[in-house]
Amino acid sequence: MSPAPEMFQRHRATLDAAVAALSRRDYWTPYPETPSGKIYGETANADGRAAFEARRGKPFALDRNGDQAATVGTVGAEVSPYGGALGVQYPKPDLDKLLAAAKAAMPRWVAAGPEARVGVCLEILQRLNKRSFEIAYAIMHTTGQGFAMSFQAGGPHAQDRGLEAVAYAYAEMSRTPAEARWTKPQGKAPALVMEKSFHIVPRGIGLVIGCATFPTWNGYPAIFADLATGNAVVVKPHPNAVLPLAITVEIARAVLAEAGFDANLIALAADTPEQPIAKDLAVRPEIAIVDFTGGAAFGDWVEANARQAEVFTEKSGVNAVILHSTDDFQGLCRNLAFSLSLYSGQMCTTPQNLLLPKDGIDTNEGRKSLAEVEQGIAKAIQGLLGDAERAAEILGAIQNPATLKRLDEAATLGKVVLASTAPGHPRFPEATLRTPLLVEVDAADEAAYAREMFGPIAFVVAARDIDDAIQRARRSAAAKGAITWSAYATDSAVIERIEAAAIEAGVALSCNLTGGVFVNQAAAFSDFHVTGRNPAGNAALTDAAFVARRFHVVQVRRPAAPPPAAAA
Amino acid sequence: MSPAPEMFQRHRATLDAAVAALSRRDYWTPYPETPSGKIYGETANADGRAAFEARRGKPFALDRNGDQAATVGTVGAEVSPYGGALGVQYPKPDLDKLLAAAKAAMPRWVAAGPEARVGVCLEILQRLNKRSFEIAYAIMHTTGQGFAMSFQAGGPHAQDRGLEAVAYAYAEMSRTPAEARWTKPQGKAPALVMEKSFHIVPRGIGLVIGCATFPTWNGYPAIFADLATGNAVVVKPHPNAVLPLAITVEIARAVLAEAGFDANLIALAADTPEQPIAKDLAVRPEIAIVDFTGGAAFGDWVEANARQAEVFTEKSGVNAVILHSTDDFQGLCRNLAFSLSLYSGQMCTTPQNLLLPKDGIDTNEGRKSLAEVEQGIAKAIQGLLGDAERAAEILGAIQNPATLKRLDEAATLGKVVLASTAPGHPRFPEATLRTPLLVEVDAADEAAYAREMFGPIAFVVAARDIDDAIQRARRSAAAKGAITWSAYATDSAVIERIEAAAIEAGVALSCNLTGGVFVNQAAAFSDFHVTGRNPAGNAALTDAAFVARRFHVVQVRRPAAPPPAAAA
Repeated sequence: MSPAPEMFQRHRATLDAAVAALSRRDYWTPYPETPSGKIYGETANADGRAAFEARRGKPFALDRNGDQAATVGTVGAEVSPYGGALGVQYPKPDLDKLLAAAKAAMPRWVAAGPEARVGVCLEILQRLNKRSFEIAYAIMHTTGQGFAMSFQAGGPHAQDRGLEAVAYAYAEMSRTPAEARWTKPQGKAPALVMEKSFHIVPRGIGLVIGCATFPTWNGYPAIFADLATGNAVVVKPHPNAVLPLAITVEIARAVLAEAGFDANLIALAADTPEQPIAKDLAVRPEIAIVDFTGGAAFGDWVEANARQAEVFTEKSGVNAVILHSTDDFQGLCRNLAFSLSLYSGQMCTTPQNLLLPKDGIDTNEGRKSLAEVEQGIAKAIQGLLGDAERAAEILGAIQNPATLKRLDEAATLGKVVLASTAPGHPRFPEATLRTPLLVEVDAADEAAYAREMFGPIAFVVAARDIDDAIQRARRSAAAKGAITWSAYATDSAVIERIEAAAIEAGVALSCNLTGGVFVNQAAAFSDFHVTGRNPAGNAALTDAAFVARRFHVVQVRRPAAPPPAAAA
Repeated sequence: MSPAPEMFQRHRATLDAAVAALSRRDYWTPYPETPSGKIYGETANADGRAAFEARRGKPFALDRNGDQAATVGTVGAEVSPYGGALGVQYPKPDLDKLLAAAKAAMPRWVAAGPEARVGVCLEILQRLNKRSFEIAYAIMHTTGQGFAMSFQAGGPHAQDRGLEAVAYAYAEMSRTPAEARWTKPQGKAPALVMEKSFHIVPRGIGLVIGCATFPTWNGYPAIFADLATGNAVVVKPHPNAVLPLAITVEIARAVLAEAGFDANLIALAADTPEQPIAKDLAVRPEIAIVDFTGGAAFGDWVEANARQAEVFTEKSGVNAVILHSTDDFQGLCRNLAFSLSLYSGQMCTTPQNLLLPKDGIDTNEGRKSLAEVEQGIAKAIQGLLGDAERAAEILGAIQNPATLKRLDEAATLGKVVLASTAPGHPRFPEATLRTPLLVEVDAADEAAYAREMFGPIAFVVAARDIDDAIQRARRSAAAKGAITWSAYATDSAVIERIEAAAIEAGVALSCNLTGGVFVNQAAAFSDFHVTGRNPAGNAALTDAAFVARRFHVVQVRRPAAPPPAAAA
């Protein structure tokens, strides 16, 4: 007997709590976010680091006994933003055979049913949690995030997002009973009685196209939603962020095999920037679902071309901060400084355009002019990043050299309020660190700022008044998408206007953040990431629509056997 | 105050029962299907008929006080399949202005919230139910259905499907609370506490493209799913089946206005075959959702071209009956005879291809050869339709002259087992009636039968053996789609093989129907109509995916006010 039902029972309490959390939307997690030896074991950090280091410069065997199906060579070209090639060589797949192997693996997985599949998914997530340190080092040395963020966002928070998808998938699959009896009265004649069965049928093979910055956090919802609903998954990581997803696939394959399933239900399809395979894969007839995280250009291409598949995209956008008034000016500046600095702005949730009335804002320190607001934020950034060790941990490293070019370009677009500096990293001399650039641009020059400038780049836009600021944010959200807005206003009528605009624009709004919550952060089980309502993406992480389209229900009905009395 | 909340309370018990029915999938309905004076009132039939007759030859005013917004003339060219032009003239809309009016109507509707909208929808459904006789006559004289079917399928069963969509919409919208409090512990430091609100935001304007045969049954799920989730709806009926949907729109507009909303939340966009407007409408940027029911060619066009919208299609397919063995040969023949005859096969669920092993089937009357099976079914059809009055009621009238051409063509494709006859209608001499045609075709000639031949046309296909029969059904489902399969087998191993094929093909399967349940019938709250898994359509009536994609959730969060103790 497969251990899968036992896995389901073992994790049942976690699942029930997760499903309940979806509709409560309070803080909840089974995966502690603190990289503490007391929680994860005193040697967990050292073990994780050693496991990561042992990967470097070697072939990556996805299975204990060798390679995944259809391996025809190796591929790998990752370079750590902290210095040095990783030198990990991943199996290079023959795509025809890889997809055939994934397809062949499915019937048993489908037949096992929702509970067995969910049990396996929950076991994979628990093992991922135990490997959080190893995955954190892999995240750090592929994405350039600082270690703490690598651990939290790449480990427990990503696991939360995976669990959230499993919980939604379980809830959706459970809405229709596996069997039902239908009894239709016929007056004095015997009732019509039918036995019905309802079968959850997955769409086919899901393709998950990973991103370079949050490969696990953005990848796990799709991977687990696909697996839980019975689909096989081919994971195509960004060529510079393969390792975190390769470890994930390795763990998932091991659990699948232990549970008596074909490990090829999840496969890695690694590539290099020189020989990309994502476009080929995305339009293959075998691919029934595509989940994409990354830039708008490729995301738009996937939406337009992968017509054979259900397509879910999380792209990019132009996020805005709308400033009107505050009762905590220092808190505002500190909060924004952190949001702009965190991971050098290399988050799809980082604010880009700071929009405020040209004649300034009201604060608890009196009226602040445009220049005073700019200086307040600039000083807060300088204060936050004054200590080299702390700055390095917050900023992380620049993941992509293109970001440096964008920084150069951005500095030419207006008046530089705060120049981006390049502090050295105390421990990784090869890492490129850049502090946030703050540029005041002409509000009329929408071509300059109403487009995404990914990286530690923020524009100050002096609008005519608050409503002009709101309209500018709204226009760029409609044209280029937006994932987050942050608003500061003490006047509830102004907040209401911003809220109405955010709802219409489909942008998640955070109001008056001056403390320890930041606009770039989205908590699983509570915050939805992306709405699907503007060009920043067509789906939300995670809601019912994200999972309900990954399977169909097919029904079978037959007349019920007559009751014994009637048969006699 | 709007009466909408009161409407919600009034219908709350019905809603709760409907939501519960979704997950029980037993027989359930609040709308009696019997056209009985005892239920609907002794004068209901006469009143309904009079109301219908009073519509003929007149302009149709959608509102008590005149026309809907943007009316620039009249349009209408319906001809009753029972004889005579209806002569009803509908408002001809200026599409630019109509869409602008629909859009302008939305903000109040959205702001009213899910409960108010659901309350209004339930009130509309109840009023539709009271008007079931009038709608039945409108259905009869546009679609050609017999009266009893017009009443049941076009009235209460269609209302069931609408209610089902409202119940799913309510359940989906209720999954996320309107407000939540998020409290994240911070060790010894004060917890982070956020107040969050979650807003249901409709996609925009939904376009519902109706079909000629079941305008209400197929149209209500989309109309009510759109309205309940906050969208406005433009109803574009088939040009020969406008009246049933015009009456529906009239009733919905009246209820909306009574509840204090803009009646333009639902509008009629009628056209004629000569000047069709569906394609123009389907690709308008204002249209955010398209629901289409109709033929494959136009449905495929909508899927390929209405890229700005979420598209839900219910198209056509090649349905199959797979015969292996039975313990009730007479029951099998009678059941199939009725399924093939009902509404002259003008149902997307009517069986088309009868596939069986060429050496016959085992029955309770011994082995039956291919010829004996053919004769059994043919005789059952002749017996069923022997009485002119009964035949007329079952067959209804041919809705579209193209069906007559298909009958002629089909008769040339093989050996005619039972010719289609043209009995006169006892009361409507102008009606064209046609009995089912049964043609034995060469199994190798898939071009002849593995395509949809809509109408009272059935092909007998002698397969090599039962597995060959299954494979032929499966191939045509994959290539051309299928909505229903019916199977007859006493051997559970054979049933299992057919079941596995049906699940993989995404076709609803009915087994061993020999009594009073027919494969063409799908009951709301229990049977899913179409799976979305093959070319017969991309969506199911109705499941969570059918409603979850019609709205987005946008969230707003702000720090909670500090508790009084901390503030002190």
